[in-house]
Amino acid sequence: MSQEYRKMWEDLNLDLDAHDALLGVLGKVYGDIYMAQKERPGGMDYFNFVMTEIHGLRIKELLEEKKQGRKIIGSYCVFVPEELVLAAGATLIGLCSGADFATEAVEQMLPRNTCALIKSSFGFKLGKACPYLEAADMVVGENTCDGKKKAYESLKTLVNNLYVMDLPQMKTPQGRELLKSEFLRFREALETFTGKPITPANLKQGILTVNAKRRALHRLSSLRRANPAPISGLDALLANQVFFYDNPARFTKSVNALCDELEERIREKKGVASEKTPRILVSGCPMAVPNWKLPWIVETSGAVIVGEESCVGERGTRELTEESGNSLEELMEALVDRYFRIDCAIFTPNQDREDHIREMAKAYKADGIIHYGLQFCQPYTVEAIPLEKVFEKEDLPFLRVETDYSMEDVGQLKTRIEAFVEQLR
Amino acid sequence: MSQEYRKMWEDLNLDLDAHDALLGVLGKVYGDIYMAQKERPGGMDYFNFVMTEIHGLRIKELLEEKKQGRKIIGSYCVFVPEELVLAAGATLIGLCSGADFATEAVEQMLPRNTCALIKSSFGFKLGKACPYLEAADMVVGENTCDGKKKAYESLKTLVNNLYVMDLPQMKTPQGRELLKSEFLRFREALETFTGKPITPANLKQGILTVNAKRRALHRLSSLRRANPAPISGLDALLANQVFFYDNPARFTKSVNALCDELEERIREKKGVASEKTPRILVSGCPMAVPNWKLPWIVETSGAVIVGEESCVGERGTRELTEESGNSLEELMEALVDRYFRIDCAIFTPNQDREDHIREMAKAYKADGIIHYGLQFCQPYTVEAIPLEKVFEKEDLPFLRVETDYSMEDVGQLKTRIEAFVEQLR
Repeated sequence: MSQEYRKMWEDLNLDLDAHDALLGVLGKVYGDIYMAQKERPGGMDYFNFVMTEIHGLRIKELLEEKKQGRKIIGSYCVFVPEELVLAAGATLIGLCSGADFATEAVEQMLPRNTCALIKSSFGFKLGKACPYLEAADMVVGENTCDGKKKAYESLKTLVNNLYVMDLPQMKTPQGRELLKSEFLRFREALETFTGKPITPANLKQGILTVNAKRRALHRLSSLRRANPAPISGLDALLANQVFFYDNPARFTKSVNALCDELEERIREKKGVASEKTPRILVSGCPMAVPNWKLPWIVETSGAVIVGEESCVGERGTRELTEESGNSLEELMEALVDRYFRIDCAIFTPNQDREDHIREMAKAYKADGIIHYGLQFCQPYTVEAIPLEKVFEKEDLPFLRVETDYSMEDVGQLKTRIEAFVEQLR
Repeated sequence: MSQEYRKMWEDLNLDLDAHDALLGVLGKVYGDIYMAQKERPGGMDYFNFVMTEIHGLRIKELLEEKKQGRKIIGSYCVFVPEELVLAAGATLIGLCSGADFATEAVEQMLPRNTCALIKSSFGFKLGKACPYLEAADMVVGENTCDGKKKAYESLKTLVNNLYVMDLPQMKTPQGRELLKSEFLRFREALETFTGKPITPANLKQGILTVNAKRRALHRLSSLRRANPAPISGLDALLANQVFFYDNPARFTKSVNALCDELEERIREKKGVASEKTPRILVSGCPMAVPNWKLPWIVETSGAVIVGEESCVGERGTRELTEESGNSLEELMEALVDRYFRIDCAIFTPNQDREDHIREMAKAYKADGIIHYGLQFCQPYTVEAIPLEKVFEKEDLPFLRVETDYSMEDVGQLKTRIEAFVEQLR
């Protein structure tokens, strides 16, 4: 890395040694998992570049935006409406939570029995290793699961400007009212913080920008219906991960360019695996960069992943925000409608998610479903059990995996997943 | 047990063998823990009787109420307003969740990493061992923690008439609105179910009845300020547990009779332990019958418990419902106000709980605090860590315990608790 970045990281008060070590591991893991893949589309070069520059060029861009008076807003969840952030002339970025870091310090603040994702978000703060978090002018938490809801009380003591958004637990009219009042409160908070009023025009532009990102991913998803699969699950996951970090317009363009290439591949019947390769739908908890453990195991076990029913995947992006409104009120209602449809396991009941899994399995011609549960993530691990029963009854093989970010269980997982894939042939 | 009870249990479709075994263990544990105590107040005889008849006489009473057309409503949480249930001419009872039961069957329905309390509630259903649950005409669940919220989705497939009440996560005006709309919905559901309209008169009577139970426990609590402690923590906990099962008027009378005796003891400076015994405040998760593990360890380790900051304790009973209203609307607002003050760890932030612990420690002259966290109970185990830091800063010794219903860790816990008590001398 150039000296310029070192100076930048130093100014962000990162722990340079720990951060160097992190980037070293990240580079190696990326090489071993991503660069080792065969038949990768050329369009993935862009994402390779993004990954090598994940703490470099992108941070530099954000700091330049800050210099020009633009605020950087960090978030940990797909319930934070990027449309509003863009409308307020600010930039939304997903914050680091995909790797174990500073675990000993984390366990002084959180119970050991906390999911890896939450622990990771604390670890990157305590270990001073997330330049996104350090560059953020405001961090937005949300009352999704108990773990996050209660952990934000402690994160508040570590992070300067933590804003917590409340969320409903049921999709009742009262639940929608709560979400609406929280979105209105967030709109006000953004306006106050950025000093820029949110108008129908800039909100509409925000909606168009975010919808364009989503549409590009929809296009990518729909191409994965093809057999042979034109892109690996690992690469598609990466695009879904970069969705949270990248400049929206550039991201949209890059995904669309990738899709042009995939369409070509499909015409040529070219794929990343043979037509007979078992096709897997992965469903469950989000996978933040660099959490590639499960898809890596799956795709080195003779299967190909054809869809992600996940916040980092279709759960996060499948719904568009209605663009037709003209008044601020209409556009806000459209936002509330859109986010209220997210079928996160924090909702009870959550029939929509079961329906969506079924729909995805059919659309992507999945031969089996692997449910990815982070250990101690109660909403998803509890929901997984009835889902397993339902899909087994429908003769859709379903494998329930519970894991964390460590590499200790890789051998055991590989054995289970290989056996599962074998049964799909 | 008499043949009459066996017939009753059989009619309730209990698994008689499993239930016999349960009662056998319960009787033995009660003997070993409760009857082995010294200097017990005579007033505890009533509670001994209640315990020997817990699945006998009380169930018989409930079945007789049912015969007379009264509905039995079961609940798992202090957020279910007994006042409304009584007003609708029904009886509210707490459901079994204090012991491991049918664990293997439970773990087919819930993740292993689920707290013992939730697993227990499933175990008693799957193992057909809770006559309260089988006698209940309606079971009320509530969206408190993730574990319960998501588990009710599966419990619905086991229990005939499960009604789920939504709850807020923040004490905002929107949160209060949600609670109010849920209480109004519950009132309607009760009226429809019982066929008895809730009127200002019967709601006021319900409030008076439940407040009387609470006032009796307030009296009991205030007597525990005395040194030497006039009653053990185990016995006081038992009274708090029986609060959830017993006939309200009889319970109130029995607690008051016990208090008369304790006042006498205090005048005579008679106690269950010497004046120099370290005094402990227990704070945290609820302890349902027969979960006496922690207080038993504490009180056989040279300390006496002087207060319970718990749902089965002051968190559940300290607030009265305002009785002065005359219209249905006023009384409903009073109910919402009362329940909205409960400082359960599901709320964020939850400063009230910290304040209440401090207040209790001072009022009951506690020398130290033991925080009781059920393993995998995220709201309480996360909250315990900042609480520990706060109270240690205030020189109030604080021991954080995380455990379950098994006996495996008793030796280890006893060692830790003995060392903690030693340090308080």
